[in-house]
Amino acid sequence: MDGLMMDFPLTLDALLRRAETIHGGREVVSRLPDRSWHRTDLGSVAARSKCLAQALQKLGVTDGDRVGTLCWNHFRHLEAYFGIPIGGAVLHTLNLRLSPQELAHIINEAADKVVIVDESLLSVWEAVRPLVAVEHVIVCAETDQVPPGMLNYETLLAECDPATFVQPALREKQAASMCYTSGTAGKSKGVAYSHRAICLHTLAAGLTSSFELYERDCVLPVVPMFHVNAWGLPYVAAMCGAKIVFPGPHLDPQSLVEAITQEQVTVSAGVPTVWISVLKELDQNPGRYDVSTVRKIFIGGSALPGSLIESYESRHDIRLVHAWGMTETTPIGTVSYLRHDQHDDPPTQQSEHRARQGTPVPFVEIRAIREEQQVPWDGRSMGELEVRGPWVAESYYQRPDAADRFSPDGWLRTGDIVSIDPRGVMKIEDRVKDLIKSGGEWISSVDLENALMAHEAVEEAAVIAVPDEKWVERPLAAVVVKSNQAVTAEQLREHLLPRVAKWWIPERFEFVSAIPRTSVGKFNKVALRHQLLDA
Amino acid sequence: MDGLMMDFPLTLDALLRRAETIHGGREVVSRLPDRSWHRTDLGSVAARSKCLAQALQKLGVTDGDRVGTLCWNHFRHLEAYFGIPIGGAVLHTLNLRLSPQELAHIINEAADKVVIVDESLLSVWEAVRPLVAVEHVIVCAETDQVPPGMLNYETLLAECDPATFVQPALREKQAASMCYTSGTAGKSKGVAYSHRAICLHTLAAGLTSSFELYERDCVLPVVPMFHVNAWGLPYVAAMCGAKIVFPGPHLDPQSLVEAITQEQVTVSAGVPTVWISVLKELDQNPGRYDVSTVRKIFIGGSALPGSLIESYESRHDIRLVHAWGMTETTPIGTVSYLRHDQHDDPPTQQSEHRARQGTPVPFVEIRAIREEQQVPWDGRSMGELEVRGPWVAESYYQRPDAADRFSPDGWLRTGDIVSIDPRGVMKIEDRVKDLIKSGGEWISSVDLENALMAHEAVEEAAVIAVPDEKWVERPLAAVVVKSNQAVTAEQLREHLLPRVAKWWIPERFEFVSAIPRTSVGKFNKVALRHQLLDA
Repeated sequence: MDGLMMDFPLTLDALLRRAETIHGGREVVSRLPDRSWHRTDLGSVAARSKCLAQALQKLGVTDGDRVGTLCWNHFRHLEAYFGIPIGGAVLHTLNLRLSPQELAHIINEAADKVVIVDESLLSVWEAVRPLVAVEHVIVCAETDQVPPGMLNYETLLAECDPATFVQPALREKQAASMCYTSGTAGKSKGVAYSHRAICLHTLAAGLTSSFELYERDCVLPVVPMFHVNAWGLPYVAAMCGAKIVFPGPHLDPQSLVEAITQEQVTVSAGVPTVWISVLKELDQNPGRYDVSTVRKIFIGGSALPGSLIESYESRHDIRLVHAWGMTETTPIGTVSYLRHDQHDDPPTQQSEHRARQGTPVPFVEIRAIREEQQVPWDGRSMGELEVRGPWVAESYYQRPDAADRFSPDGWLRTGDIVSIDPRGVMKIEDRVKDLIKSGGEWISSVDLENALMAHEAVEEAAVIAVPDEKWVERPLAAVVVKSNQAVTAEQLREHLLPRVAKWWIPERFEFVSAIPRTSVGKFNKVALRHQLLDA
Repeated sequence: MDGLMMDFPLTLDALLRRAETIHGGREVVSRLPDRSWHRTDLGSVAARSKCLAQALQKLGVTDGDRVGTLCWNHFRHLEAYFGIPIGGAVLHTLNLRLSPQELAHIINEAADKVVIVDESLLSVWEAVRPLVAVEHVIVCAETDQVPPGMLNYETLLAECDPATFVQPALREKQAASMCYTSGTAGKSKGVAYSHRAICLHTLAAGLTSSFELYERDCVLPVVPMFHVNAWGLPYVAAMCGAKIVFPGPHLDPQSLVEAITQEQVTVSAGVPTVWISVLKELDQNPGRYDVSTVRKIFIGGSALPGSLIESYESRHDIRLVHAWGMTETTPIGTVSYLRHDQHDDPPTQQSEHRARQGTPVPFVEIRAIREEQQVPWDGRSMGELEVRGPWVAESYYQRPDAADRFSPDGWLRTGDIVSIDPRGVMKIEDRVKDLIKSGGEWISSVDLENALMAHEAVEEAAVIAVPDEKWVERPLAAVVVKSNQAVTAEQLREHLLPRVAKWWIPERFEFVSAIPRTSVGKFNKVALRHQLLDA
């Protein structure tokens, strides 16, 4: 017997109608390349999204065609987030930090028919253009002028009318968007998000145990919109009616704190490196900024030392909340909040809880696997995290060779080594490829890094495996010392002694000026290995 | 092009797995008929739900079979909420306040194969039993004894093992539960909820703009579990991991306030009449109870005077939140919160905002129709509310004759007369059938009632239409005066004069000792008409 409920598809036009009719007056603020501020609202974004969809129809874009975006975070990118999918096409966000060759590979594999490019990124685009077969290039420009052969976003929209836009029938399982993984290992792989996955993700990400977004909030997504849907925040903000502030290309700590102060931001999100440098900016300029409006900052992409969580909380009354996800999980998989019985724990213990990646959001399920067995949820045993749920990828775009990333019973193998506690709280211990296998045991490079970064003289630390005749692998620590501070390898060893098992302590420390980073700001351990071991 | 996301169905077993693995330790407290307290947790409820599913399988219940429940709010009813649907059967909650004939009609139309009955409701059941053809009757009893020919819930579960329960494959569109409307007009009609509808409703109802439920919350669902899934609260609480307190049959104000005080309830929900009497209990016994833990009380079923909202807020620091829904909408359709720019409005204006029914929750869409035209969203124009969304009924169970309750383009006609403001805030002006059509204009009986109840001497007021030769209809007000107070019709007329249009003022006032109520606690205007007009 079937239920007798409406066959109402979970498609992005429903979210857009809501943004327009219920939250049309909510502000959307963008910082333009010239550092000036652009102000519009969700009503205008919705109308213009329909214009964009109509403009693409006129350009011959039809059902399932891919439309790339090479853009910073701004209102036009938000219009693309809605306008491309509601026309039945597929939004393909391009990571502007990739090399021209990588970008060309991705554009060609996805067969993007149209690409929307920021004027400020035309220099990036010029190197890609000769390598790809895109039919139309649309430029987001503040002036009338765009290079010959390209179309002006504003001119195209001016020729359209939201009232005459005819929306095609959308199926909830059809693709709404695509994003390529930014893994350092191997060729990046395409993930195709369905309308259904994004709608469900938006609902789950808006819950109190996820982004906990209110209509009265003001959200600053620092995480780029080219990086897994900016963690879903643009859609969640549009659904909840929160004000949105887009930083544009201005991601330096000073610009971010200016944006927070001026627009009274309450919620933000980004990778740890951003918040490490923002903390520095705040600490070095006491009294210059007002960040008192900020309730929460969501952290993802890599683990965060508990000490940073404590610093934000004690010095600026800002709560950092850890979340975990991947390109393959749309991305929110887990979020870390204290449980009802942990609010009275001592501060240090609370920080330890918070430094974990947290519990899965509703409808996401997790398990940890080692040697084909489920590892017990005891908070200690480590295994590779596997995940499933309605917004988790079941395969990669045109990559049957990557079928081994999925278990025989259909879970996604994440490549993260985790432990899970009895209440389902997940802690990332390491990446599979970064784990140090020493004498049959596993050493977590992440735990070692966090223990090292808890030293007052250490700015950053990255730990990699060094081949070892006796133990197979042993850890090597690359350490960046804070300016005007000094520390020796011996002092670091003494610092680690009470914090980790004795056999975890690296025998080798390398003091470096910086840790190389990937295009999304994570430690690039492949590059670090080259730098320290191959040299 | 389809998305490449997992085909993960939205079925209730996913919510149950979450409750068990992530929130297994969260308390589920029930007040038993003898007023003692029963304490268990979500882990046990989950295990026993699987036992119930297995027990039903043993009794021959298979895919799509209906299993009725004639139960108060308690942990076993929660087990039925999960156990029946995860076995592929359909939970059919029975309104224990209906007459034996009405219950028999509903049970027979739904063809319930098994019915689960509370021991304390066996007297109700005895009158129904001869009228229905149910195969098995299971009794929720605290003792080993059950009447001959009936099965004992606990004995059945003791013979089952959650580890050996084999869950059938569930489709998200299959029916999970059924509930009959309790309309006073015409035969009640069956609504069949799909797993998908309930799962989506649970996600949307958990949002900050809906029930805003946290893991640290303690929820007291006063709204009966036989009444539209207790507004979804049991599922939302299980998903969020909130503690649940079930009042059992003890719904008198004193018992409710005892439960709130003892269990430190933070969130509750029920119809206005409950909260009117709870307020009385609190006001008459200053200092006896501690309700300081309560953050929010959700109100639905009928409109609430702004004065009551103010009284709770000013005297007890408790926020009443208006929600609107129907059996046909699973039920949450709209919830009333202040917008970001209304928090600084004067208190009276804030109460007026709050007394509206609010904005639709995500994925629910509303419109108001008068004479087949959409009424403008100006906050004044009235029309019949129509609604659509993934948890809105598209038809009634075996009732093709009720097809006129749906518009030609597939919206549900709610029978509520509403106005909608420019930001989508909906206000119920009346029921279609209660509206007073005076001289071609509409008079809202609800507005008149609220204006009357704002008078300090008025406990309750209900307004009905009286046939009128000149105006077609004119309003009649039935008024219950507070004990130890007095008021005249002339004084009420003077009280109304500055509050409503002059031509709205009833020429006839009837002072009565009580307003008759329906089985779910709403004003029964059909009975009132009989009482006052036919007499």
